[in-house]
Amino acid sequence: MNIIKQQPKHFVSLDTLSLDEIMGLIEESLRYKQGNMPPLFDGKTVANLFFENSTRTKNSFQMAERHLKVQEIPFDVATSSVTKGETLYDTCKTLEAIGVDALVIRHPESGYYHELVETLNIPVLNGGDGSGEHPSQSLLDLVTIFEEFKTFEGLNIAICGDLVHSRVARSNASVLKRLGANVVGCSPASWWDESMGLEHRDLDDVLADCDVIMLLRVQHERHIMGDIFSKEDYHVRYGLTPERVERMKPQAIIMHPAPVNRDVEIAGSLIEHPQSRIFPQMTNGVYARMAILNRALGGQL
Amino acid sequence: MNIIKQQPKHFVSLDTLSLDEIMGLIEESLRYKQGNMPPLFDGKTVANLFFENSTRTKNSFQMAERHLKVQEIPFDVATSSVTKGETLYDTCKTLEAIGVDALVIRHPESGYYHELVETLNIPVLNGGDGSGEHPSQSLLDLVTIFEEFKTFEGLNIAICGDLVHSRVARSNASVLKRLGANVVGCSPASWWDESMGLEHRDLDDVLADCDVIMLLRVQHERHIMGDIFSKEDYHVRYGLTPERVERMKPQAIIMHPAPVNRDVEIAGSLIEHPQSRIFPQMTNGVYARMAILNRALGGQL
Amino acid sequence: MNIIKQQPKHFVSLDTLSLDEIMGLIEESLRYKQGNMPPLFDGKTVANLFFENSTRTKNSFQMAERHLKVQEIPFDVATSSVTKGETLYDTCKTLEAIGVDALVIRHPESGYYHELVETLNIPVLNGGDGSGEHPSQSLLDLVTIFEEFKTFEGLNIAICGDLVHSRVARSNASVLKRLGANVVGCSPASWWDESMGLEHRDLDDVLADCDVIMLLRVQHERHIMGDIFSKEDYHVRYGLTPERVERMKPQAIIMHPAPVNRDVEIAGSLIEHPQSRIFPQMTNGVYARMAILNRALGGQL
Repeated sequence: MNIIKQQPKHFVSLDTLSLDEIMGLIEESLRYKQGNMPPLFDGKTVANLFFENSTRTKNSFQMAERHLKVQEIPFDVATSSVTKGETLYDTCKTLEAIGVDALVIRHPESGYYHELVETLNIPVLNGGDGSGEHPSQSLLDLVTIFEEFKTFEGLNIAICGDLVHSRVARSNASVLKRLGANVVGCSPASWWDESMGLEHRDLDDVLADCDVIMLLRVQHERHIMGDIFSKEDYHVRYGLTPERVERMKPQAIIMHPAPVNRDVEIAGSLIEHPQSRIFPQMTNGVYARMAILNRALGGQL
Repeated sequence: MNIIKQQPKHFVSLDTLSLDEIMGLIEESLRYKQGNMPPLFDGKTVANLFFENSTRTKNSFQMAERHLKVQEIPFDVATSSVTKGETLYDTCKTLEAIGVDALVIRHPESGYYHELVETLNIPVLNGGDGSGEHPSQSLLDLVTIFEEFKTFEGLNIAICGDLVHSRVARSNASVLKRLGANVVGCSPASWWDESMGLEHRDLDDVLADCDVIMLLRVQHERHIMGDIFSKEDYHVRYGLTPERVERMKPQAIIMHPAPVNRDVEIAGSLIEHPQSRIFPQMTNGVYARMAILNRALGGQL
Repeated sequence: MNIIKQQPKHFVSLDTLSLDEIMGLIEESLRYKQGNMPPLFDGKTVANLFFENSTRTKNSFQMAERHLKVQEIPFDVATSSVTKGETLYDTCKTLEAIGVDALVIRHPESGYYHELVETLNIPVLNGGDGSGEHPSQSLLDLVTIFEEFKTFEGLNIAICGDLVHSRVARSNASVLKRLGANVVGCSPASWWDESMGLEHRDLDDVLADCDVIMLLRVQHERHIMGDIFSKEDYHVRYGLTPERVERMKPQAIIMHPAPVNRDVEIAGSLIEHPQSRIFPQMTNGVYARMAILNRALGGQL
């Protein structure tokens, strides 16, 4: 017990990773996609704590865990002692005490992880924090873009929609600029977030020059849009319609973190359009999360 | 990518299978019961999407998956993005995108699977659709009958109770007639379903001649019976009582898909009666679902 | 089928085990902690039926199952047929019929297991019954005490707090006395339970002589304490404060089954105090449950 304790490999924000580390994770993800599998972690266990609903992120981490032969300790918020008032810290410390090797956490409170990363001896993998960040989604978005263009340098990327409530927008805008992309934002004035430091543009003005259109989900569950415009109005003014797709470059791609509101952010008929990467993003998400888990559990890059 | 895409081996209704295929699945189930195990599917994954409550069907598929070393990707409707309005199609397509190899689905909408089987590239295994069908339950019922009598030809079978709301009745009536059994229906007039094409008989008139009494669950959750008759009345007029069992042939068997309403469809004391196959049906259900999964995942018969 | 049926190795109360058996389980747990692993149970399955919320007990059994390579059949009360009125007996018999090898059950009804142990052919492992017992928690408490002191004989142990609603108090008071410890109870008069046969003492009078202070959870979910005293009052009069810890023997230990109400039973700052065994108890719980499962599944001690 005389050895120096190593800091757990938390994964809470891409901002804390160097560009080298980020590029390493992207390339690792794509190696997994090509069938080069990492070492298995037989005997290691992970708990997935989702304090907000999820299909994609949770199931994607679970698939990544199975590929890595990591065992899952099921954690169901609704039937846990959280309902008896147990704090997040005590819940996580309990899972550490029973031997869980890493925690995937989604929580409605932005920055929930600050206390945890200072005190836990096991890594915290952020599956989304309030309106903060969603770094595993950002990583899979980066994997999808890099797989397509083999670079980020000089790419024209428009992030479109509800920027102010989106944790994906925040994570992505920051890292894409660091990686050399030209990023603009397109959104209704009421959903614009000045603090992201993006240039505000009209989608119709930039569409023809974009390499990547990143659509954001209209957050019904966080934000009622009825007061501002109807779904139909939003679709016509800000959504991706078949007419707008016609004006995109043929090699440009469409992205969306999903779940999609069909015919709001994007016409339902475009979700599986040849230029759409919406479902391939989900496929890449499994490989991205394998890279995140491999890093957390002490595997080699 | 030049190869011809093979159609996924959906399992949505016994009506779409030939009698040869059905007999193949029955015999395969019984081989598993005798200890002849199929090849294992290590590395394959299945998600079980239950949009209606279940113990037997869900746990039975889960047990079959474990016997086959198929990994389960847990799917909990209540904490999924379905709560954010995601469609069934988008949810299933998401699971396909993250690499799930087959979907077991129970859904309250009859025929929910029609859209899915035309569009998904992975098999859909129907765990019950509304008041439509419940083909894995039918298969386990067939396995139980065939195990007992080694044939279906000429067997006298009475399906008794709430025919109109029962997806088991519909599946079973159809396939048992195809297999050569004589099937009659016994039910209160208000629960009779003319469209099944069965002869309507009084249970007390056919009891002595039956080889199989298939009781149906009174669907409290779908149908309030209080208006029509009390539980006690139902039991006396339509339920299986110890007196009625006395009049059955000694080699005849009693079946019920469960969960049982004790002392409604059947006296509680008869559930584990020597002629009851209620719990053995559940045991057979695991082997039947192994056969269904083996077929879906590309194993050999 | 001519062989004599062996009685399943239920684990419902420490009262039914001899002191030799209990000491055997304690020593077995500590052997696992030292890395001597039991045989694996590949192919065996366990279902965990929690009719009351839990983090520690459920996750701890699940971790023990994974260490033993026992497969879990997920059971979710909220989406099971229990919601259709299925009885506990029928639910358990169903799981037996589909081939589950052991059941871990937590249920709000004290003594729920009496009917089950007479009828089921698979072992029932009690994860807590109403205000009855919580024998796996007792076993892990014993493991923690024995690990510390290498004996129970002559130890001075105070069980403190809400004795009347605590299933841990009942289990522990009984077994610790059998093992030779001197056990007293410290509690508000309204939470005193004469039937446990303990001497009633004031915590401040016994503190300096105790080897073990076992704090109990104030059961908010079972008992509203607002009428009697505030949280602050309780903490000052009955809780473990930093001042009280100063008066404990330096080698004495603090225990609590958790979840802890911080600053009620114990000051939040003391939970990870050097003399606290609260998180180590959870770690030991996994080893204790491995011993319980190993016994139930037919492994050798």
